[in-house]
Amino acid sequence: MKYLAASIAAGLAALAASFGNGKVISKTLEGMARQPESAGNLRATMFIGVGLIEAVPILSVVVAFLILFL
Amino acid sequence: MKYLAASIAAGLAALAASFGNGKVISKTLEGMARQPESAGNLRATMFIGVGLIEAVPILSVVVAFLILFL
Amino acid sequence: MKYLAASIAAGLAALAASFGNGKVISKTLEGMARQPESAGNLRATMFIGVGLIEAVPILSVVVAFLILFL
Amino acid sequence: MKYLAASIAAGLAALAASFGNGKVISKTLEGMARQPESAGNLRATMFIGVGLIEAVPILSVVVAFLILFL
Amino acid sequence: MKYLAASIAAGLAALAASFGNGKVISKTLEGMARQPESAGNLRATMFIGVGLIEAVPILSVVVAFLILFL
Amino acid sequence: MKYLAASIAAGLAALAASFGNGKVISKTLEGMARQPESAGNLRATMFIGVGLIEAVPILSVVVAFLILFL
Amino acid sequence: MKYLAASIAAGLAALAASFGNGKVISKTLEGMARQPESAGNLRATMFIGVGLIEAVPILSVVVAFLILFL
Amino acid sequence: MKYLAASIAAGLAALAASFGNGKVISKTLEGMARQPESAGNLRATMFIGVGLIEAVPILSVVVAFLILFL
Amino acid sequence: MKYLAASIAAGLAALAASFGNGKVISKTLEGMARQPESAGNLRATMFIGVGLIEAVPILSVVVAFLILFL
Amino acid sequence: MKYLAASIAAGLAALAASFGNGKVISKTLEGMARQPESAGNLRATMFIGVGLIEAVPILSVVVAFLILFL
Amino acid sequence: MKYLAASIAAGLAALAASFGNGKVISKTLEGMARQPESAGNLRATMFIGVGLIEAVPILSVVVAFLILFL
Amino acid sequence: MKYLAASIAAGLAALAASFGNGKVISKTLEGMARQPESAGNLRATMFIGVGLIEAVPILSVVVAFLILFL
Amino acid sequence: MKYLAASIAAGLAALAASFGNGKVISKTLEGMARQPESAGNLRATMFIGVGLIEAVPILSVVVAFLILFL
Amino acid sequence: MKYLAASIAAGLAALAASFGNGKVISKTLEGMARQPESAGNLRATMFIGVGLIEAVPILSVVVAFLILFL
Repeated sequence: MKYLAASIAAGLAALAASFGNGKVISKTLEGMARQPESAGNLRATMFIGVGLIEAVPILSVVVAFLILFL
Repeated sequence: MKYLAASIAAGLAALAASFGNGKVISKTLEGMARQPESAGNLRATMFIGVGLIEAVPILSVVVAFLILFL
Repeated sequence: MKYLAASIAAGLAALAASFGNGKVISKTLEGMARQPESAGNLRATMFIGVGLIEAVPILSVVVAFLILFL
Repeated sequence: MKYLAASIAAGLAALAASFGNGKVISKTLEGMARQPESAGNLRATMFIGVGLIEAVPILSVVVAFLILFL
Repeated sequence: MKYLAASIAAGLAALAASFGNGKVISKTLEGMARQPESAGNLRATMFIGVGLIEAVPILSVVVAFLILFL
Repeated sequence: MKYLAASIAAGLAALAASFGNGKVISKTLEGMARQPESAGNLRATMFIGVGLIEAVPILSVVVAFLILFL
Repeated sequence: MKYLAASIAAGLAALAASFGNGKVISKTLEGMARQPESAGNLRATMFIGVGLIEAVPILSVVVAFLILFL
Repeated sequence: MKYLAASIAAGLAALAASFGNGKVISKTLEGMARQPESAGNLRATMFIGVGLIEAVPILSVVVAFLILFL
Repeated sequence: MKYLAASIAAGLAALAASFGNGKVISKTLEGMARQPESAGNLRATMFIGVGLIEAVPILSVVVAFLILFL
Repeated sequence: MKYLAASIAAGLAALAASFGNGKVISKTLEGMARQPESAGNLRATMFIGVGLIEAVPILSVVVAFLILFL
Repeated sequence: MKYLAASIAAGLAALAASFGNGKVISKTLEGMARQPESAGNLRATMFIGVGLIEAVPILSVVVAFLILFL
Repeated sequence: MKYLAASIAAGLAALAASFGNGKVISKTLEGMARQPESAGNLRATMFIGVGLIEAVPILSVVVAFLILFL
Repeated sequence: MKYLAASIAAGLAALAASFGNGKVISKTLEGMARQPESAGNLRATMFIGVGLIEAVPILSVVVAFLILFL
Repeated sequence: MKYLAASIAAGLAALAASFGNGKVISKTLEGMARQPESAGNLRATMFIGVGLIEAVPILSVVVAFLILFL
């Protein structure tokens, strides 16, 4: 049961992180292709956004490691 | 059963947080690409919004840690 | 069974809160990008809306804590 | 089984309330951004609507508390 | 089993009521924002509609209370 | 098993009734906002439609009461 | 098992009837709002359609009553 | 098990029949509202179509009755 | 188990047949409303199509009868 | 278990065949309504397509008969 | 278990083949209706595509026969 | 369990291959119908794409054969 | 259990790889049909993208082989 | 149970990675086809984005290997 729990936590974290990041980065690319002059501004916001999005999935991976090694 | 519960709470929190954040940050990027002059205003609202959204998922992660260490 | 119940209540609350908040805040950002002069009015309504939306999920998290410590 | 039932009732109530409220409040924000002069009228209708929507989910949370303390 | 049944009935009622009400009230707000002069007429129809929609979910909550106290 | 059956019948009836009514009433509101002069005609058809839609869900609630008290 | 079967048959019948009726009646209202002069013709077709749609769900409710009283 | 099988067959038949009929009749109403002069032709095709669609669900209801009385 | 199998086969056949037929017949009605002069040609193709679609669901109903009476 | 397997194979075959055929035939009807002069060419391709689509579902029905009579 | 496995393999193969073929052939018909002069070229590509798509489902049917007769 | 595993691997491989191929080939046909002069270039890319897509499903079918004959 | 695990890992890898590849290659074909002069540049990016996408599914197939032969 | 957990973690990681990557790379290709002069800038952002997206799925694959060899 322990192994299953760790894999569910890690799998959902992977799903969540790549769903959120995929949405943000693709919007950035769309914005850059439409307005190349504001590329720097968009990329800076993208880095902040990716950092904010990855916070909770990383916590979920930590939960998975805790379950595995506890 | 304890481990499974912790992983479900953490996994759903990760899914929720990155869904909500992904939506808000991508809308911010879209708004910035369309109107570069109101970038500061949008980014300020984005930080408030991200803070408000992450409140309940962080509580859910806390529930996961409580389940794990209780 | 107790732990599972707490995690389901907390997880669904997180999902609900970030779905509702994500919708409201992204609409606010869209409105601000289109009409920067009515930003104050929109942000005030956003705070009221976020408060109203978070009421029931917070109750659900309270139910989760009650289940955990009862 | 008791705990599980309480968490399902509370979780579905949270999901329902924030789905309905999210829809109504985002429509209000959209209407305000398009016609700032009718903001008062829309906000009044929004408060009535939010009150009507939250009636049944609050009853469902009451059912959850009844299950928990009966 | 009794508790689970009550929570399913109450939870589905909450979901149903806020789905139906959310749709009707958001359409009313959309109509008001587009034609402010017919706001009274729309709001009157909205009250009738909300009353008709909430009839069956309230019956379902009654079923939940009957299950709980029978 | 008896209680679960009653709650499923009542819950699905609530879901069905508010889905159908929500669709019909929101279309009526849309039609009224677009053509205020034919409001009476639309509202009359709406009452007939709501009556026809609620027939089968009410039968399903009757089945729920029969299951509960048989 | 008997009660569960009756509630599934009644619940699906309610879902089916209000899905089909909701679609037909909302299309009728849409057609009436667009062309008020052909309202009589549309309403007549609507009554035929509602009668044809409700035939099979009523049979399914009959199956539910048969299961309950057999 | 026998009762459950009958209710599944009857319920799916109701769902199928009202899905198919709802689609066909709503298209007929849409066509009539757009071209009132070809109403007779459309209604004739509608009756043929409804007859063809209801053939298999009626067979499925027959299977339900066979299961119930065999 | 035998009864359940027959009802699944019959139910899926009903669902399949009315999904396919609903799609084809509604397209025919749409085509007739747009071009009344080619109604005969479309209706002929519709009969061929309905015959081809109903072949496999009828076979599935035959399987259901075989399961029931074998 | 044997009966259940046969009904799943036959049911999925029916679903598959009528989904694929419904799509192809409705596209043919759409093409014929838009360009009546190329009706023969489209209908010929339709027969080839229907033959190719029905190959695998018929094999699946054969598997169902094999399971039933083996 | 053996029969169930064969029916799942055959059923999924049928679903897959008719989904893929339905998409390709309907696109071919759409292309032919829009540009009748390139019908030969499109039909040739269609045959290659159908051959490539049916390769893996046929392998899955082979697996089903192997399971059945092994 | 062995047979079930082989059929799931083969079935998912069939679903995956025909979903991916169906998408690529239908896009090729769409591109050819719009620009007949670049048909050769598109068809070459299509063959490369189909080869790349079918690599992993074929591996999954190999896994199915390994499970069956190991 | 071992065989089932291997087939799930291989099946999900096949689904994932052909979903991602199908999306990328169809976008490449769409871009080539619209701008034939930048075909080389698009095809180069496509090969890089396909390589990056297939990395994790191949790892998942490796996990499947490890489960099978461990 | 151990093998199943490893395959779920690896399978979800594969699904997540190819969903996110597929979205980002297809947006890059779309942007390149529309504005060939900013191809270098888009491709650089794409590499950063793919790296950020693949971080959590790779962690999930690591969890799968840990489960397998622990």
